[in-house]
Parts: sequence; structure tokens; C-alpha cells
Amino acid sequence: MMRPINFCSGPSALPLSVLARMRDELMDFQGSGISVIEHSHRDPRIVQLFTDVERQLLAALGLDVGYRALLLSGGATLQFSQLAMNLLGQDGVGAYVTTGAWSEKAVKAAAAYGTAVEIASAKSSGYTEFPAIDAWNIPEDARYVHLCTNETIHGVEWFGSVAELGLPVIADMSSHILSRRMPMHTYDLVYAGAQKNLGTAGVTLVVIKSDLLDRCQLHPGTPDVLSYAAQAAQGSMVNTPPVMSVWVLSLMLDWLESMGGVDAIEVQNRAKAALMYGAIDASGLYHNPVAEDARSWMNVPFVLADPALDAAFLAEAEAAGLLNLKGHRSVGGMRASLYNAITVSDVQVLIDFMHTFERTRG
Amino acid sequence: MMRPINFCSGPSALPLSVLARMRDELMDFQGSGISVIEHSHRDPRIVQLFTDVERQLLAALGLDVGYRALLLSGGATLQFSQLAMNLLGQDGVGAYVTTGAWSEKAVKAAAAYGTAVEIASAKSSGYTEFPAIDAWNIPEDARYVHLCTNETIHGVEWFGSVAELGLPVIADMSSHILSRRMPMHTYDLVYAGAQKNLGTAGVTLVVIKSDLLDRCQLHPGTPDVLSYAAQAAQGSMVNTPPVMSVWVLSLMLDWLESMGGVDAIEVQNRAKAALMYGAIDASGLYHNPVAEDARSWMNVPFVLADPALDAAFLAEAEAAGLLNLKGHRSVGGMRASLYNAITVSDVQVLIDFMHTFERTRG
Repeated sequence: MMRPINFCSGPSALPLSVLARMRDELMDFQGSGISVIEHSHRDPRIVQLFTDVERQLLAALGLDVGYRALLLSGGATLQFSQLAMNLLGQDGVGAYVTTGAWSEKAVKAAAAYGTAVEIASAKSSGYTEFPAIDAWNIPEDARYVHLCTNETIHGVEWFGSVAELGLPVIADMSSHILSRRMPMHTYDLVYAGAQKNLGTAGVTLVVIKSDLLDRCQLHPGTPDVLSYAAQAAQGSMVNTPPVMSVWVLSLMLDWLESMGGVDAIEVQNRAKAALMYGAIDASGLYHNPVAEDARSWMNVPFVLADPALDAAFLAEAEAAGLLNLKGHRSVGGMRASLYNAITVSDVQVLIDFMHTFERTRG
Repeated sequence: MMRPINFCSGPSALPLSVLARMRDELMDFQGSGISVIEHSHRDPRIVQLFTDVERQLLAALGLDVGYRALLLSGGATLQFSQLAMNLLGQDGVGAYVTTGAWSEKAVKAAAAYGTAVEIASAKSSGYTEFPAIDAWNIPEDARYVHLCTNETIHGVEWFGSVAELGLPVIADMSSHILSRRMPMHTYDLVYAGAQKNLGTAGVTLVVIKSDLLDRCQLHPGTPDVLSYAAQAAQGSMVNTPPVMSVWVLSLMLDWLESMGGVDAIEVQNRAKAALMYGAIDASGLYHNPVAEDARSWMNVPFVLADPALDAAFLAEAEAAGLLNLKGHRSVGGMRASLYNAITVSDVQVLIDFMHTFERTRG
């Protein structure tokens, strides 16, 4: 049987070679005779695994100096609260740019720990564009600006620069981290759930500038295990960490290196997006509503001119081995997520299917 | 090579057949053609997996009716805070029994959300006994009593009954859940990290009486993802859950059933503990300090009469394929953890080694 192509928005497709390594190395970690998940997290091999993952991650992000990478639990959703717990102290101010469903959740969650001010929103556009940065109205006492640089549901991505904002910038990069070279040093804190480009759910990456780490102000009642400073001081092992998910992350980073690193994957991702949007724009049946300069490379939502064809599209796609193309229930239509594990030829198979469907049913 | 026997306190040994199933089924979940960790958590197969795990867990615990099982993130350490966040409201009172290192952490963490009162402590005994229940001095306004029914570091286990306490009882059962038949219905909330008897780190079990779930009073600022009620309402999927660890948990539950269930595993665990303590008590070299009625079946700490032999004991054990026998740094000496995956014959191999070591070096 041909392996299906999985366009799921997350958890999402993993490279076949990463799954094969998991299978092949599961029973015996580094010749120890027992599985990676049977080792104590205090075992030198596991401590080394975590150290290596941090180093590999920062290197892949181009952030070798002045940053830490924490490997935490709870998903990016918990980060919506946790970042505010760590940075707002008793009742500080956070400034939020709202660009879709995920950043809406982030601003709502932060309000429990201080003042969360929405400084710009693209809601009136139906979240089809990124609010122009010169209109961001940042309060003087804001401790940070928060944005979601890729909105998974709406397919809106940030290609601008936050270099000149003059205060710490925090980005939720869950659905496009390591998809292309980005000016990571212009961010002070970046977080991402692992289940898109970093492997499997269960571990959440928090990359934080050492300088900001030193200036964390905990909201009263923040548990130690949710403190960035405590986790940084203990190598992400305040308590037993999710070793399995960190191991999968390490295999993903090895795979990324073997592919030629972020620069090489960027070439592929650019090509995949160009093919996909090109096919949509050239068609009479498919339509993507997002402004051209904000179209996500990772998540491509599209609608059919005749929504009555949606069910047939999905059924025939699945029969052809093209999985999880249904759009999020809040926006409807279709969505193809083109994370790092999806190849150019996977995208070509999808486009061929879309052509055939349009010709025969459109 | 003979597979080593892993006596680690956690993460700990898994049954070989569970690891083999992981390896064999990793690439294709239930004939879908993709891995369990590549599926959306909203996929009917994954939703069913979670439903089945909850049902299997409650059945194994003998709690078919009136309880929910939540599959959460963050480890038992986060539960020290989270249970207080969910039950103490603005500033309620929790009553704590202190029996070792883990319950010490629990009472400390809860103090951030209300008043955490230590109602009994075995500290003066060096944590070698369980405080007699008739001396527990419970404040009238306490919302719950908390105890750790098996202290992993000190090897102290609770074999008494909490049936008559007259208020909700919460137990941290991380290191002995499903090790024997226990009167689970006398507990209102039980939690456990997965990395001992439930599989691999990354998921934490919270079993809660529906009645208590309905009476949760959230501390201000508790994130949705940490709310028991919100997680119960959404089938433990307020956000993307740790699917991989839940899958391993499901394989562990299948394995437990295949072994004959908790009653059958209890027979084994009783025999393992009897063998181990019998060997220690009969020896002139090894000593366990715990009161006889509180000796843990799961974690057996012991010291050598001459601590100068510790290093040789550990080195020779490791050379013989007996791993992770070093005691926790806070108590020293040795510790053999005999979780469900450890067989009677594994224990016999350890005892044979101990005999030989005593004869030749003791």
C-alpha cells in the first residue's frame, strides 16, 4: 500500500525516516540495552540528550549565544498563561497583536495575571491580513509585545520585522518554527508546541533570551515547575520531563540537519507554497482569501466555489490517500498543512488531485 | 546479550512485550497507514483511544461508576499545585500528612493557593513509618486530606484505611498505582505520573470522583488547561494532549489485562516484596530501616552494613546487568524498585547477586 500523505494541521506528518529510527532504536538507547523511556531522567545519557537538543535547537535557529531553550510540558496553550505568569509580575501590562484564533486565546489567557491590551487586530478583515506594524499602538508601560507569527487556522503568516519595536517581543511560532530562516535574534521569547515541525505532542519549546530570563517577575502563586528561571536552572528537569517527546524532537533535529538544515528546508517550503498558491490562483474552483503578503507557507486554507462539492472533495481525496484536508470548523472549507515533513512531490500529488477533481466535478 | 534488569525508581522498566508492540505498531495505527502520533487528536480513532483508556483505567481500579479519569500534562509535581488550584478556591484549607520527600513538596506547593496545614508527620522517625491515623488532627474547615500512599524515596507505603475520615481524601499514588487491589472508592481524588506503573513520562493520571469534580472551586488565575472541570468536559483535550504517552498507557493497560489484571499482579508483587525483604532481613550485610507494617512493595531501600562497599556493590551489580540500584541522594544506600514490569525471577536474580556479593565481599 502507498503510504498516505497526511496534510493534518497538527499533530501532523513526520518524516518516514524519523518514524523508522524511532522503531529501530526504541528497544535499546545508545547500546544501554534498555529503552530511552526506561532510563532515569538523571541518567547521564538522558541529561546529555537534553543538552544536545538545546544546543541543536539553538544552532538550527541561528541563536547560539545569549538564549536558552527550555523543553516544557502542557502545550503552547499553557504558554498563553505561563508567559504572562513569568513576565507580568503582580499586575504588569502585556501588549497583544490579534491575528486569528490562537492570538485571541493568548490575550484572553494573559488577562488573568495583569493587563492584556490588544494593540492591533485583523479581525475586521476576517483574519486575512497581518495588521501593519506602524499602526501598533503600544502602551508605554507594556513589558512585551506578543504576536502569533503564523496563524494555523487562518493561514496568515508574518513576514515583517519586529526589530525596531524597542521592547521585548514574544512570538508563538508553533506552526512555522524552523520552516525558514527568520530573524530570530529580534525576538526575546519564542514558543512552539512540538507536534508540527518539532515532532510529537507532549513537549513545548520555549526559547528565551538570557537577558529576559534574568528579568522574569513571577506572578504570585506560579508553581516552580512553570517558572522559566527554575526550569532554566535545572536543565528543564524541575520534575520528570516528557523524555519520549524530547527524544523524538532530537530525531527531528537530526533529520533537519541531514536535509541540509533550515536553509535547505526553506528552499523546499518556498517551492511548496508557490506551487500550492499558484495552483489555487490559476483555478476557477479553488480560492484562498488571504492577502498575498501574508499567505502562510505552512497552512494553506482554501474554499471551493461551490461548497456543495466539499464532501465529495474530501471523500475522493481520502480515497486517493490524501488525509486531513478538512478546514478548521470555525472557518470551513479545506486546509492543506505543508509542514517540513511534506515534500514537494507530496504537494504535486495534491495539486494533481485538485486538477482532476476540478476537471471532472468542478 | 541478556537484557539488563532495570530497578530504576522512575522512569522505570517497561514490559518487553509493551516495547515490542510500540515498535511493531508505531508506523501504522489501526490500519490507518500513518502513525498514532501523526493523527489529529480530533480524529475519531484518537478520541476513541482516550475514551478506551479512561474506561480501562477505571475498570482496572475497580471504579466503574461515579469517577472520571483525566489524562493531563506536567507530571505529579504539577498536581501538587494544580489540585490546590482546583479545590481551595480563593483561600481554602487543605490538610496534609507528611510521610517523606514527595508529600513535603505537596504541602509546600499548596500553600500558594490557601492554607496548607500539616496534620501529621513522620519526619522524626526519619520517614520510616506511617503516622497513625487516629493522631491526624484535621481542622474542621479543611476541604480535603492529602497523603502520599507510597513514598518512592523512603520506601514507605500506606496499608491502612481512610474510609472513616469524613472529608474528601486525595492520594498521590504515583509509585504504586495498580500494584495491588486498593479500596479506591475511599479516595475522592487520586493522581499518578505515568512513568512507573503506567508507561512513560508525559502524561499524568488524575482520577476524580464526579461529586468532587462538581464542587471544584478554582483559585483565581487558574488557566483553563489546568482546570479539572474543563478537562473533564473536553475529554482531556482542552488542548493537544500528549498522544504518544497516552498510547503507551493504553498498551500498558492491555498488558495488565493480559497478565490477569490487578489481582494477578498483586500476587506477583506480594511475592516479590516477600522475597526481597526476606533476603534483606536474613542477611548480615543488608538492612532496611522501615517499620514492618509500612514497607513498600514497590520501592525497597536498603543500606550495606559497611558503606565503604557501596561503590563495589553498584559496579558489580551493573556488570551483572542489574541497573539503577543506587538509592536517592537524600537517603543514600541502595534502592530496588519492583514495579509491575519487574518479574519474580528478576527479583530472584537480584537476590542471588546480593547473596553472592555478601559471601564474597561482606
